[in-house]
Amino acid sequence: MNQSIIHEAREATPLIHHLTNQVVMNFSANGLLSFGAAPVMAKAEEEAADMAYNADGVLLNIGTLTADDLSSMVRAGVAANEKGIPVVLDPVGVAATPFRKTAVKNILEQVKPTVIKGNAGELAHLVEIPWETKGVESVGDGNADEIAAKVAKMYQTAAVVTGKTDVICIENEILQNHTGHPILGKITGAGCLLGSVLSACLTTNESIGQQAMTAAAFYGLAAEHAAERTDVNGPGTFLPHFIDALSLNPAALERK
Amino acid sequence: MNQSIIHEAREATPLIHHLTNQVVMNFSANGLLSFGAAPVMAKAEEEAADMAYNADGVLLNIGTLTADDLSSMVRAGVAANEKGIPVVLDPVGVAATPFRKTAVKNILEQVKPTVIKGNAGELAHLVEIPWETKGVESVGDGNADEIAAKVAKMYQTAAVVTGKTDVICIENEILQNHTGHPILGKITGAGCLLGSVLSACLTTNESIGQQAMTAAAFYGLAAEHAAERTDVNGPGTFLPHFIDALSLNPAALERK
Amino acid sequence: MNQSIIHEAREATPLIHHLTNQVVMNFSANGLLSFGAAPVMAKAEEEAADMAYNADGVLLNIGTLTADDLSSMVRAGVAANEKGIPVVLDPVGVAATPFRKTAVKNILEQVKPTVIKGNAGELAHLVEIPWETKGVESVGDGNADEIAAKVAKMYQTAAVVTGKTDVICIENEILQNHTGHPILGKITGAGCLLGSVLSACLTTNESIGQQAMTAAAFYGLAAEHAAERTDVNGPGTFLPHFIDALSLNPAALERK
Repeated sequence: MNQSIIHEAREATPLIHHLTNQVVMNFSANGLLSFGAAPVMAKAEEEAADMAYNADGVLLNIGTLTADDLSSMVRAGVAANEKGIPVVLDPVGVAATPFRKTAVKNILEQVKPTVIKGNAGELAHLVEIPWETKGVESVGDGNADEIAAKVAKMYQTAAVVTGKTDVICIENEILQNHTGHPILGKITGAGCLLGSVLSACLTTNESIGQQAMTAAAFYGLAAEHAAERTDVNGPGTFLPHFIDALSLNPAALERK
Repeated sequence: MNQSIIHEAREATPLIHHLTNQVVMNFSANGLLSFGAAPVMAKAEEEAADMAYNADGVLLNIGTLTADDLSSMVRAGVAANEKGIPVVLDPVGVAATPFRKTAVKNILEQVKPTVIKGNAGELAHLVEIPWETKGVESVGDGNADEIAAKVAKMYQTAAVVTGKTDVICIENEILQNHTGHPILGKITGAGCLLGSVLSACLTTNESIGQQAMTAAAFYGLAAEHAAERTDVNGPGTFLPHFIDALSLNPAALERK
Repeated sequence: MNQSIIHEAREATPLIHHLTNQVVMNFSANGLLSFGAAPVMAKAEEEAADMAYNADGVLLNIGTLTADDLSSMVRAGVAANEKGIPVVLDPVGVAATPFRKTAVKNILEQVKPTVIKGNAGELAHLVEIPWETKGVESVGDGNADEIAAKVAKMYQTAAVVTGKTDVICIENEILQNHTGHPILGKITGAGCLLGSVLSACLTTNESIGQQAMTAAAFYGLAAEHAAERTDVNGPGTFLPHFIDALSLNPAALERK
């Protein structure tokens, strides 16, 4: 983890425009506020591009996508590309239905993401590697390195494959992050909020590989820190402490 | 409570497709994850049926219904009926407006629910028993046995009338559950999340009466368990502990 | 703070119809329930007016406004005006995009709010005082007295400008509230939930100035009370205790 990325992101309090799913909006907003950046979540087609122009980064997450949302996402993504600010695409559950497959294809034809971030099953689908999914959840980790590399190459972007080990690929470089905690699998939106923190880190002056590694490492360490508290007895009590941990100094989170 | 239903549901981690209201999406997802099942909440008309075909159960909750949502609910419900997976209908606030009345009528003409679940006022409305409501809340308990029996008969379904005593009717059998805690009335979505847990229990190999009783009994015991903690001082601190309690072994929750 | 307003509101459990943003729906519902009033959040155009007729107050918050939401807000607001129940307008981020500017203008042409409530930047925009905003957040406090006075005069309403000091203006009277805590700036929806509590207080038999002062004072004291707990270490752990504190007796919250 490059701690200066966290400090730099917090100093600038970047505004991240979220076109995200309705399940996680509150959690993502609180998590990103605690981290030290500023969320905004305007979803109307009429203002999606305007809000992207106001912002420092854009996050597109298709978890509860509708046809109207798709149109807003494309507008926000195109505006972000024009302005030259980072765009993170989180193709939640893309393999689950034809509607999602077509929607993501549609986005990728019009918007160039800085990072495509998802679990192994989601990103495998984008590069036509066979994969088993269950609803919007991926089953197993598989060859995440191969998946990340193919996504990075095919879409000329950075790829972040989340899992027990997070795999990041940009150009031909593969990075791996080993922080994290299984309890993240018992709360909704763990991957979604990582997308928000990642978007904030991408607004700093560093390489995308370092930014993605730092976001993933910091996020996983915050989860470990919260999960280890003696007053955490399950996913419900984990949540408030995890939100708190996202506000901590990265030095306080580093493993001893 | 038939504890084996809880164990069986958790072992299978059933995927429950939620067409539910925007107020409770996060809470329902976290609660169901903690319980040990898997939520998915795709709401677009274009994919509602596809996602239902992927799922093990479908929950329809009209709390913040729009015309678009109604169409998605019908598609998901019809697909679930075709596939032969359980459907729970939660007609939140049905008596409050003509829009809701017509919507629920519309759903019931096209979808056959496995269980219709609601408070006394909501279910009374469905069988034209006069009742006083306030917004989407029911006032008083009334004759829940009679209401449950009429709903079960008229709609050829199981009926769950929630309240201080939960009343379940299937065919001509009436069951009553006495677990629960008044603090559930001070949080939003307590009834909605019961619908999620009930949907998960309905995917097991047991009678619907036993499944509904077990879901209601377990849910109420989890609430009692959380409410009795010394660090719970109100609905805010109750919530994280309630989410935790939903992950516990049913044996740990049984009253001494 | 006029404690009797809190007691009177709780005794009546007023039903507040929320047309509010998707980020805060769960938080606002839980916060208002804890306070002792009843939230309802029906958003379909077809029932917005009917639900307003059922309610004791209406809250319009444009945080994640869509064109459909706008139409529902106007219908609910017009119905509330006809029925003679209070309407609170929270023009979240109004200055951020042309869509929001036009939407709020549209609402204000058709609906007469009892109170317009927002941060200094939002209310400055409504009276064409230049202001710097960042996304939907206001930067700095500026001359809140002047802003509140101009809003009250131009829209013939009460104005509540939230900030470190909350400024309330009705007719020519200016009131100031000094309770509150900086941690409210680290959670999403702090201003939105104040709108809910304010709506509940406006249903009592007191002057609007006293109602608004009481809502703001009580809300800020609840935040102070929660923030001072030894087990609060950040915004995540603050949230459950803040929800709890909203249920307390106002006498228990008054500063010593």
